[in-house]
Amino acid sequence: MTVNLKNFLNPKVKMSKMGEFQELQPIEGLEISSISADLYGDGRDDLTLFYFENGANYAATYTTSKVTSASINWNLKIKRHFVKALLVNTQNANTFTGIKGAQGLKEIAYSLSKALTLKSSQSPNGASEVIKITDLLFASTGVIGEDFPYLKIKNNISELVKKLRIEQNKFVWFKAASAIMTTDTRPKLAYEECKIGNKLVKISGIAKGSGMIAPNMATMLSFIFTDANIPSVFLKAILKKVVTTTFNSITVDGDTSTNDMVAIFATGKVKNSKIYNVLDPKLQDFEKALHRLSLNLAKQIVADGEGAKKFITIKVIGARSFAMAKNIGFMIANSPLFKTAIAGEDPNWGRIVMAIGKSGENIVPNKIQIKIGNYLVAEHSKVAKDYNEQDLKEYMKWGSVDIEVNLNIGNISHTVYTCDFTHDYININADYRN
Amino acid sequence: MTVNLKNFLNPKVKMSKMGEFQELQPIEGLEISSISADLYGDGRDDLTLFYFENGANYAATYTTSKVTSASINWNLKIKRHFVKALLVNTQNANTFTGIKGAQGLKEIAYSLSKALTLKSSQSPNGASEVIKITDLLFASTGVIGEDFPYLKIKNNISELVKKLRIEQNKFVWFKAASAIMTTDTRPKLAYEECKIGNKLVKISGIAKGSGMIAPNMATMLSFIFTDANIPSVFLKAILKKVVTTTFNSITVDGDTSTNDMVAIFATGKVKNSKIYNVLDPKLQDFEKALHRLSLNLAKQIVADGEGAKKFITIKVIGARSFAMAKNIGFMIANSPLFKTAIAGEDPNWGRIVMAIGKSGENIVPNKIQIKIGNYLVAEHSKVAKDYNEQDLKEYMKWGSVDIEVNLNIGNISHTVYTCDFTHDYININADYRN
Repeated sequence: MTVNLKNFLNPKVKMSKMGEFQELQPIEGLEISSISADLYGDGRDDLTLFYFENGANYAATYTTSKVTSASINWNLKIKRHFVKALLVNTQNANTFTGIKGAQGLKEIAYSLSKALTLKSSQSPNGASEVIKITDLLFASTGVIGEDFPYLKIKNNISELVKKLRIEQNKFVWFKAASAIMTTDTRPKLAYEECKIGNKLVKISGIAKGSGMIAPNMATMLSFIFTDANIPSVFLKAILKKVVTTTFNSITVDGDTSTNDMVAIFATGKVKNSKIYNVLDPKLQDFEKALHRLSLNLAKQIVADGEGAKKFITIKVIGARSFAMAKNIGFMIANSPLFKTAIAGEDPNWGRIVMAIGKSGENIVPNKIQIKIGNYLVAEHSKVAKDYNEQDLKEYMKWGSVDIEVNLNIGNISHTVYTCDFTHDYININADYRN
Repeated sequence: MTVNLKNFLNPKVKMSKMGEFQELQPIEGLEISSISADLYGDGRDDLTLFYFENGANYAATYTTSKVTSASINWNLKIKRHFVKALLVNTQNANTFTGIKGAQGLKEIAYSLSKALTLKSSQSPNGASEVIKITDLLFASTGVIGEDFPYLKIKNNISELVKKLRIEQNKFVWFKAASAIMTTDTRPKLAYEECKIGNKLVKISGIAKGSGMIAPNMATMLSFIFTDANIPSVFLKAILKKVVTTTFNSITVDGDTSTNDMVAIFATGKVKNSKIYNVLDPKLQDFEKALHRLSLNLAKQIVADGEGAKKFITIKVIGARSFAMAKNIGFMIANSPLFKTAIAGEDPNWGRIVMAIGKSGENIVPNKIQIKIGNYLVAEHSKVAKDYNEQDLKEYMKWGSVDIEVNLNIGNISHTVYTCDFTHDYININADYRN
């Protein structure tokens, strides 16, 4: 198959790299379309529509920020757990855009509901129905506080709907994952499959995010689609659980976005046996698959952290509680001194000690053991006996660095993921808007 | 007076710049000495001794970190509020140095107590007395986790004591302030005077600190000396109050050191009238003077923040509580996205909105007003009507940037101080130990 570059209108995305990405499978009941409303002024794709002909059960988690995007506010008002479509725009966050931002979004919603109602009436299956604005979800990402370009978006709705395709080959997924990017340097895609009872179900997910990424939120944008038949209430319970150890366990810069959203949509096209409760053993495989997929996407976000050169895994074990393990993990992961040391390939474990200390957790310094890679670097409140700076320096050259902190005061553990802090982070953020 | 460069043995400190610094006055009852124990290997000054011939009342605040230096642990065990000397070393933090670090410190304490006892016996005033190790305080700053070079320090104690001088001209203060530096690029000095009753008292203070600086602590090292006669219990109350709005209101990188210490010593040589309680109106002027001096030193620390090019003042007004104002101020001040935008001279106020949001405080987005300099940039949840990007871009070129956030939901305010986040921060920290 010949790659048509015109289909991938995000200049940042090199098609030649496509082979490196996981190939996503089509999800029955879903149609996708990505086009350019020229929000960036360079013609790249910036609008993406996900449409469920027969609707989808869904669950979503949103940012915990006290300042939220008009699109998040919209979604939070939707009380139904069955939706028809999700529209995503990049370049503008529609946050701190005043009443005009909210009104603009409403106008887009009306246009989209009309266009989808029209499409439905032309459906060959004759499944004609009226699509209401409350059937629609929205996500926005980009600059905060600039006027929301709702007219540009609105004027492109009919084309966007016209281009909806049931066919979801790898190029369609790749194009959609590229269209939702902002400062990302590569699209993020992941695929899993599993069985519910004796039926095979598929899970295809995409994500974006590279700055303003921190705990306490549903980190950036991630949209996950499955053909499984699972009620929304169980989707919600599973998503909440999975997000804790995946999207909520990563950090790039400790900053929390006003627009974060992780959502899962289930079209129910696979007629798996009915699920009656969230503890149903039939759901275990699904939960595991969703966890793998979410962790995969979350790690892709960290690996593509703004300016990141190294992927860092911080495992805190032997803690008294989950909160303690998580707090200490993030204290290390968010410490600029720690992150710059990693960037400089300096095994300066003193900064790990500093970060543990500032957590305020009731640790016992004398019990702490710190490992970098497989090397024990500190225990008994001092440098380890066999510490060899040269070995450590060699290890620090790797692209992926593992830190393990054993608090030795309990049996709870938690792992967080982050990246180093480099000059490129500053380059990207010092003039993000120029 | 000719400047003798050999007296200022910190290669980082340019003597030609000395004219820029405030001239400190001698404090009667205090003797100072700074020498090199060659801890850095380049012969720069790294040991400083402050000695009070007739002792001094004192008060100190220390880091809130759960991992603390052996020197902090030592000081915390001293229950007396009357001390004879303070010894400061740089280059090594004596943190996570195990039992050897604590034992090494004890050996130094014994050497110092002996040397000072000997000195006292040779005193022309004949004020011979035995100086105990519990009369001594210590402070260390430098790398965490490397073996504490206690022998090098111990072997230099007698020379250090021998070089103690009552004379404290500006060079002596300058030399001491330079000797306690680590990554600082300039010494930090401040002087104030005030009246207690009808007596003039002097306050001379020095500080160091440039990285690992954040709230929740007695930020870095600062040593303040006065000839006033104030009981320790009142010194403590005043210091605690003053530190809240000065040293505890600054941040460079959000990282909290294991070694922070702010201490004030009062020799009582000025025979001001006796103070009977902390609310004594005679103390008001002193408190104000100490506040000016502490804010001055705290601002010098921020201005010398690692890699800092811009000084940032963030005033949060209209808050419901002090905790709310402080939390929001620090959320902004510690946000890497905000700090890199300032470095890039980009008036990207959306990042201020983001930081307010992630604070978790119960703000009302629609009531928030944000000013950069004198320019109102956002209100009513959107960009301000008269916002002019060009004006703002001009303003952002200044070396000092003022941000004001009016939450408009209460009448409490708090101001925090920080610096921008530049390439130099990464340069300094990526290979701090090399």
